[in-house]
Amino acid sequence: MKTIITTAFIFSFFLASAQKIDFDKKLKDLGVELYQPTQPMANYAKVVRSDNLLFFSGHGPTFADNTNITGKVGKDLNLEQGYKAARQTGIALLSSLKAEVGDLNKVKRIVKVLGMVNSAEGFAEQHKVMNGFSDLMVAVFGEKGKHARSSVGMYMLPTNISVEIEMIVEVEE
Amino acid sequence: MKTIITTAFIFSFFLASAQKIDFDKKLKDLGVELYQPTQPMANYAKVVRSDNLLFFSGHGPTFADNTNITGKVGKDLNLEQGYKAARQTGIALLSSLKAEVGDLNKVKRIVKVLGMVNSAEGFAEQHKVMNGFSDLMVAVFGEKGKHARSSVGMYMLPTNISVEIEMIVEVEE
Amino acid sequence: MKTIITTAFIFSFFLASAQKIDFDKKLKDLGVELYQPTQPMANYAKVVRSDNLLFFSGHGPTFADNTNITGKVGKDLNLEQGYKAARQTGIALLSSLKAEVGDLNKVKRIVKVLGMVNSAEGFAEQHKVMNGFSDLMVAVFGEKGKHARSSVGMYMLPTNISVEIEMIVEVEE
Repeated sequence: MKTIITTAFIFSFFLASAQKIDFDKKLKDLGVELYQPTQPMANYAKVVRSDNLLFFSGHGPTFADNTNITGKVGKDLNLEQGYKAARQTGIALLSSLKAEVGDLNKVKRIVKVLGMVNSAEGFAEQHKVMNGFSDLMVAVFGEKGKHARSSVGMYMLPTNISVEIEMIVEVEE
Repeated sequence: MKTIITTAFIFSFFLASAQKIDFDKKLKDLGVELYQPTQPMANYAKVVRSDNLLFFSGHGPTFADNTNITGKVGKDLNLEQGYKAARQTGIALLSSLKAEVGDLNKVKRIVKVLGMVNSAEGFAEQHKVMNGFSDLMVAVFGEKGKHARSSVGMYMLPTNISVEIEMIVEVEE
Repeated sequence: MKTIITTAFIFSFFLASAQKIDFDKKLKDLGVELYQPTQPMANYAKVVRSDNLLFFSGHGPTFADNTNITGKVGKDLNLEQGYKAARQTGIALLSSLKAEVGDLNKVKRIVKVLGMVNSAEGFAEQHKVMNGFSDLMVAVFGEKGKHARSSVGMYMLPTNISVEIEMIVEVEE
C-alpha cells in the first residue's frame, strides 16, 4: 500500500513538474523569446491586479528594442503582416505577464481580450488579424489560452501602431 | 402560528416560481426567440467565466441562420435600422448566455457593456443606436438588466457588421 | 505599556484621519470641484457594482451645467485642449464615483481605464491626450490612482464629445 501511495505521489509530482515545464517549453518550441518590458513613461501601469484578475494596459506590437510595427492594415500592411503584428502584440503582453507573475504556470485562464486593429478604409478582416494573437495564446496555454474576444477596426492608434490589444488574465491566488 | 408559517412558505415559494417563469415569459411577450449559437471558427470562446462573472466576446447582429446585419449606420442604415441591429445583437448575446448558463434566471446583473457602432462620417448618435440593446435588456431583466455602458463609433468592424457589442454578466454561484 | 498602546492607538487613529482628509484636500488643492451627476436618459446606469469592483459607463468631458467639450482632437482641438478634455472627463468620472460611494477614501485602486479620443485623421497622440486623465488620478489618489490603460483613436463619438472614458475601480467592502 505504501508503495502505491509513494508511486502515486512521485507520479503526480512528475506530472506537476511536466506541466510546469510545459509553458516555457512551448514558448521555446514556438521560437518565442520574451523580453524585459520598459516602464510606462506616464502616470499609468502596464498591469494592475485586483483579486486574482490581472488587467493589462493596451499593448502594441513592440519588440525587445522598444520599436513597434506601425501602419494601417489593409494599406500599409497586408493581412499576413497584420496577423504577425497581432502575434507580436501577444509576445509583448506575455512579456509583461511574465514580468508581473514571474512564473507563467500561475496562469489559470486568458479571460478576455479587446483587439483593436489600425484599419484602412474598407478593411473588414480584423478577426483574421486578431487570430495572430489568439493562435499564439492557445499554442502556449492550450485550453487555458482560449479567451473571449472582440476584434474591431480603429481609425487611429497612438504613434500609428498597427494593433493595440488589452487583456484580462486570471491567475492563481 | 404554524398556518402563518406554512402560508408564508407557500407564498414565498409561489413568488420564487413566479419570478423564475418571468424571464422566459418576458422573452415570449417581446416575441424574442433565442437560437443555438454556432461555435467560433478560430481560437477563442464566445463566453469565458471567471468566478461569478461571464465575459462575452464581441457579438454582432446575427440571426439564427448565421447571417448578419451589415453596413454603416448613418449611411447604409438609418437610426431606426441601427437601433434594430443593436437589439438583434442583444438577442445574439442572450442566445450565447442561455447556451452558457442554461437557465436565464441565474442572471444577477447585466454589469457592463461596450457598444461599438459601425459609423458613417458625421454620425454621432451611437447612444441612440445602443438603446436598441439596452431597452431589450431592461425589458427582459428589469432592474437587473440595467448596465454600465459605453457607446462609441467605429471606423471598421469585421465583415462590415453594423454593431459589435461585448458584455460582462454577473451570475449566481 | 498601556501608555504605549494608547499612544500607538491614538497615533494610528490620527494617521487614518489624516489619510481620510487627504483625497478631499488634494481635490481642493488641485482646484477640482465635483458636481452632482445627472441621471442617464436611457436604460442604463452610470455605475454598476459587482462584488468590490465598480464598472463605470463611458463618460464624456461634461461640466456641472451638463455641457460637454466637443470636436475632434487634431482638428477642432489641439493636444493641450485634448489633454484638458481628458482631465474634465476624469472630473466627470470622479463626480459619479463620489455620488456612488459617498466617501472617496473607500477607493482601493483605479484598476483599468479605456480612453477613447475623438480623433482627426493623422492624429496619433491619443496617449498624450489621456495623460490629462491619468495625471489627475495620480494627483488625487497617488499610487492607488495608477491604472492599467488603453488609449485609442475613435472615428465618431456620441454628440461629438472629444473624449470618452470608461473605468473599473476597486473599492473597500
